[in-house]
Amino acid sequence: MAHIELTEGLPGIRGPMVFSPETTRPLGELVQVLLTGPHTLTPAEREMIATYVSSQNDCYYCQTCHGSTAAQHLGGSDSDYELIAQIKHNYEATPISAKMKALLAIAGKVQQGGKYVTANDVERARQQGATDKEIHDTVLIAAAFCMFNRYVDGLATIAPDDPAVYAAGAQHLINEGYLPPPGA
Amino acid sequence: MAHIELTEGLPGIRGPMVFSPETTRPLGELVQVLLTGPHTLTPAEREMIATYVSSQNDCYYCQTCHGSTAAQHLGGSDSDYELIAQIKHNYEATPISAKMKALLAIAGKVQQGGKYVTANDVERARQQGATDKEIHDTVLIAAAFCMFNRYVDGLATIAPDDPAVYAAGAQHLINEGYLPPPGA
Repeated sequence: MAHIELTEGLPGIRGPMVFSPETTRPLGELVQVLLTGPHTLTPAEREMIATYVSSQNDCYYCQTCHGSTAAQHLGGSDSDYELIAQIKHNYEATPISAKMKALLAIAGKVQQGGKYVTANDVERARQQGATDKEIHDTVLIAAAFCMFNRYVDGLATIAPDDPAVYAAGAQHLINEGYLPPPGA
Repeated sequence: MAHIELTEGLPGIRGPMVFSPETTRPLGELVQVLLTGPHTLTPAEREMIATYVSSQNDCYYCQTCHGSTAAQHLGGSDSDYELIAQIKHNYEATPISAKMKALLAIAGKVQQGGKYVTANDVERARQQGATDKEIHDTVLIAAAFCMFNRYVDGLATIAPDDPAVYAAGAQHLINEGYLPPPGA
């Protein structure tokens, strides 16, 4: 049971979103800017950063929701889902780009705390071609999911077990984006 | 030196804000909603939550900026600043309300991770009169500052030593709010 009274049947962040529409709007706009739209990192790559950080924070709802979204951006096959699972487990051993590995290393440091990010971490990313914007956005995506994970779990929201719930949610996010509907 | 190239001379979050105006707007709107405006918790109390979490995350810029804002909301005397310092050190021993102590306990758990918040923590707050909205907003303020602290320190932004810089910044925030200026 959640720590506060939320609309029944809404999993994860969706309960708090309905509870507090005045904060839902800027939160939705933040994720919309960070994870969607034109960028030198693909939507799948940005969702991988969100997924990895959520996994490190042990937030089941967020890592499964964004992991499914990342996998579906890649095509949605079993091997796409398997890649996302491997990234959570040990991204250094996966076939993602060297730049993405360096950015995930930065994201992992941000998850521990901002001061854990070293000049060497940033230099590694630059040597793999990462731009200032990619480094900035990696830090902010990682930091933002340290917020979302705590929001979801700090209120003890429910997280369904059924992968189909997350697959459907991922399809919705890919098609409709992260902005709350007008008037919500 | 910051990890990415930021406008010189802008301390803390202000460099990244100028670097990334498209994320600055929702971030500003989020803090504006959470920390300002009508609420059953005073602006000073909400700034105390932001300050305490930033202190637990060892983010010098954020704890000093929001600590100064909290103190100035209280009147800005030396004893107001001293109270804020004591809250960071051991809020249970300060003369703040029992409800605020219970909410700071929840905020401290959120800082460690969402799952650290227990039903007992929430029950303690309720017994001191905390509402669902106050509990929700405490969790989200604490979670949001886990983001802001990581954003500021994860990019290795500069933090001035001079308390006068933070006092002036606090005055600006109290007078103008957290929204970026139109067109920024």
